[in-house]
Amino acid sequence: MSTRKLRVTIWNEYVHEREIPAIREIYPEGIHGCLRRFLSQDESISVTCVTLDMPHQGITRELLNNTDVLIWWSHARQDDITDETVQLVKDAVHSGMGLIALHSAHYSRIMQALLGTTMTLHWRHGDREKLWCVCPAHPIAQGIPACVDIPEEEMYGEVFDIPRPDDVIFIGWFAGGEVFRSGVTFTRGMGKIFYFQPGHEEAPVYEQPEIQKIITNAVHWAAPACRQDAPPQNIAD
Amino acid sequence: MSTRKLRVTIWNEYVHEREIPAIREIYPEGIHGCLRRFLSQDESISVTCVTLDMPHQGITRELLNNTDVLIWWSHARQDDITDETVQLVKDAVHSGMGLIALHSAHYSRIMQALLGTTMTLHWRHGDREKLWCVCPAHPIAQGIPACVDIPEEEMYGEVFDIPRPDDVIFIGWFAGGEVFRSGVTFTRGMGKIFYFQPGHEEAPVYEQPEIQKIITNAVHWAAPACRQDAPPQNIAD
Amino acid sequence: MSTRKLRVTIWNEYVHEREIPAIREIYPEGIHGCLRRFLSQDESISVTCVTLDMPHQGITRELLNNTDVLIWWSHARQDDITDETVQLVKDAVHSGMGLIALHSAHYSRIMQALLGTTMTLHWRHGDREKLWCVCPAHPIAQGIPACVDIPEEEMYGEVFDIPRPDDVIFIGWFAGGEVFRSGVTFTRGMGKIFYFQPGHEEAPVYEQPEIQKIITNAVHWAAPACRQDAPPQNIAD
Amino acid sequence: MSTRKLRVTIWNEYVHEREIPAIREIYPEGIHGCLRRFLSQDESISVTCVTLDMPHQGITRELLNNTDVLIWWSHARQDDITDETVQLVKDAVHSGMGLIALHSAHYSRIMQALLGTTMTLHWRHGDREKLWCVCPAHPIAQGIPACVDIPEEEMYGEVFDIPRPDDVIFIGWFAGGEVFRSGVTFTRGMGKIFYFQPGHEEAPVYEQPEIQKIITNAVHWAAPACRQDAPPQNIAD
Repeated sequence: MSTRKLRVTIWNEYVHEREIPAIREIYPEGIHGCLRRFLSQDESISVTCVTLDMPHQGITRELLNNTDVLIWWSHARQDDITDETVQLVKDAVHSGMGLIALHSAHYSRIMQALLGTTMTLHWRHGDREKLWCVCPAHPIAQGIPACVDIPEEEMYGEVFDIPRPDDVIFIGWFAGGEVFRSGVTFTRGMGKIFYFQPGHEEAPVYEQPEIQKIITNAVHWAAPACRQDAPPQNIAD
Repeated sequence: MSTRKLRVTIWNEYVHEREIPAIREIYPEGIHGCLRRFLSQDESISVTCVTLDMPHQGITRELLNNTDVLIWWSHARQDDITDETVQLVKDAVHSGMGLIALHSAHYSRIMQALLGTTMTLHWRHGDREKLWCVCPAHPIAQGIPACVDIPEEEMYGEVFDIPRPDDVIFIGWFAGGEVFRSGVTFTRGMGKIFYFQPGHEEAPVYEQPEIQKIITNAVHWAAPACRQDAPPQNIAD
Repeated sequence: MSTRKLRVTIWNEYVHEREIPAIREIYPEGIHGCLRRFLSQDESISVTCVTLDMPHQGITRELLNNTDVLIWWSHARQDDITDETVQLVKDAVHSGMGLIALHSAHYSRIMQALLGTTMTLHWRHGDREKLWCVCPAHPIAQGIPACVDIPEEEMYGEVFDIPRPDDVIFIGWFAGGEVFRSGVTFTRGMGKIFYFQPGHEEAPVYEQPEIQKIITNAVHWAAPACRQDAPPQNIAD
Repeated sequence: MSTRKLRVTIWNEYVHEREIPAIREIYPEGIHGCLRRFLSQDESISVTCVTLDMPHQGITRELLNNTDVLIWWSHARQDDITDETVQLVKDAVHSGMGLIALHSAHYSRIMQALLGTTMTLHWRHGDREKLWCVCPAHPIAQGIPACVDIPEEEMYGEVFDIPRPDDVIFIGWFAGGEVFRSGVTFTRGMGKIFYFQPGHEEAPVYEQPEIQKIITNAVHWAAPACRQDAPPQNIAD
């Protein structure tokens, strides 16, 4: 209804793309650069990018207070995220900020803190995936075909130790014989969370139009109707 | 706590096993005979079998009033089930009777009436399945390995048009590239429902020990703590 | 994103308002007239009204194919709704049409067919309600205060025999000592369903601004992203 | 099936009962003493009690490895619980230990860590409650009347900032006008969690037979089918 743009902040660890030439070739601007490029094609979205090596790990209260949806990609240095960063993100989600955790970010300290489980899974390098939509009525699934082929993807397999999701939107099939709940939603406080498994750094998964469409849909879905300044609080009469 | 046995009634359409020699060879006593055999090995369970060709399609109010868990296998003649039979089973589930619908019984008029969706899916003959457990804390999953191989099984694939399940316990992987929510639970009134996809009649799937264990677990899970005589009713002060 | 208006069809039984002078005084244009009045203030919504006494009970396939969200109010003549009408509405919901069932419409044959339970409850005339929001992040709750006072309302109390809802958005408190899950959502096929308890015909509940806001929010939430022509179907490879 | 007893550990903060004479009079043996007394009447349960003032805050890995269900009551000194204690309990729940959090323990660091929300609510001293069962098919509700009167209870009101529960079993009605999701279940890893609101220390709520029955049912429900030694872990092929 409003004409204000959705304020998306992309947080990228940005380690692999700088350290490993083969990955830099896939994402020369970093994974965040690729995400920014396609999200910016949606005129209702404005994008800010931050990375782990910035002051305060790229995360400040002021930034999050001005973020409608935070996208998070992390892998090699999940353990370096400080308690303070975790708390800032957690508070922001509780206050209504949307959160999209991509691929290995399932194992971020942020996701563990918000979901309360170990977030462990079964994994193996070098597989291919077929991503099936099992909840076609969901806003995140709009315009997505019944099945999306991902020619090269790391295998993530069950058991995925997550709480019962609000919705399971996508289930991944892997050529090696595994399945995975690849797109799942949760609510924590006023904030909506979407976890999306595709996006291993060794293949240009985020360049696939259907994957871009899913992430763009998720941004619109996760955006809060009303962004609060603070998490819910106790009220005494 | 009680020493009374769980009263299981197995309803089998019993058409394929009589009409098609290759299937009769797999299940010479009928599918119900196979189910009865392994369930009867559990001393806490007593089994009654009924089939479509019996008077009243094998279903009477008296039988259901004395049934804790009804197992249902149907395929070729789903449309022949009368409104009266559907209503009797629906009333019994609402009153607390457990219901286990196997394989093609997803498309029975009974399941459609209880769940309220079309129960449609994607299917193809001649595939193999790997059945993954995604909810290992569930009573139905106790003692079941992380993955069960089913060497020959009809492919059932998503989108499976069901309401959001209470729990998704098993997800099936098919060699042809599909996935399926193969073991799902629902509650309707006082009754618990388990739908379990494996069991195409052209292969001896119900002879696999893990499949037998899952169905036996499901009987214990679906059994009502307290079997009522009638469905819930309106109460006016 | 589109500029096409949301096409809302209001179906009202329209019996009490014509037969009982005290109710006619509250809703001189019928309950549907009141609903139409406030929904029409939203410029993105266009409204059509139909009533039970019209040909085909007011419901045709053509009408439903051109309806994004159907609002249903019924009470005295729930049993008169034909199988054909039930099937048309059910098919439309499965195809993506949103459905908002108001007050005593919980016990409509349509809701029973879509949800698969008895939909029974506990009730008593002459009470007052406080409606609490328990899911403030939900789109239907946007702009609604934590608690809405309804000075005069029929008591609906638990146990409300419904399947586990997708979300419980509102819980009603009644002065006589009861509670009720007063605003609950479900999904069936491609269609979203919202049941909302307030709206007994003997008090002008639908004239309360907060109640109007909730119903307007629900229309926007239940509107399909993509209205299909037919319910989901089986697909054979 | 096994004849081994369920091993219940009751953890009580045990501050109010020692510091405030009026509360000591209600629970002369401590709240844990009351819980132990009625749970011990169930011959299938064995009880161990620990309190905050014990070494290691009463919690060791060895104790939890030998606990099937942990009951937790805390209030005045929630903030004193160490990170180490939180982690031990969290690991045990993930490994399959059941957890029953009573009354103000909703706000324990343990529940916040497992559920990932603020766990905030609305509260007021000096009210009375009617506890309605809204999920009569659930094992925790067996043998419990439709409504339990609690003559004196602290008001806990919505919004209760919890994730969407697996099941809402009880909803509380308070004379002052509030409602509360008073009995809710969650799963985290292999462990089942039941939060139960009644039990303010200034009234003998845990002496009510229905409340005792609910907690005893919850112990049986939360007990793991198979207690693992460690939380779920990542598996690499």
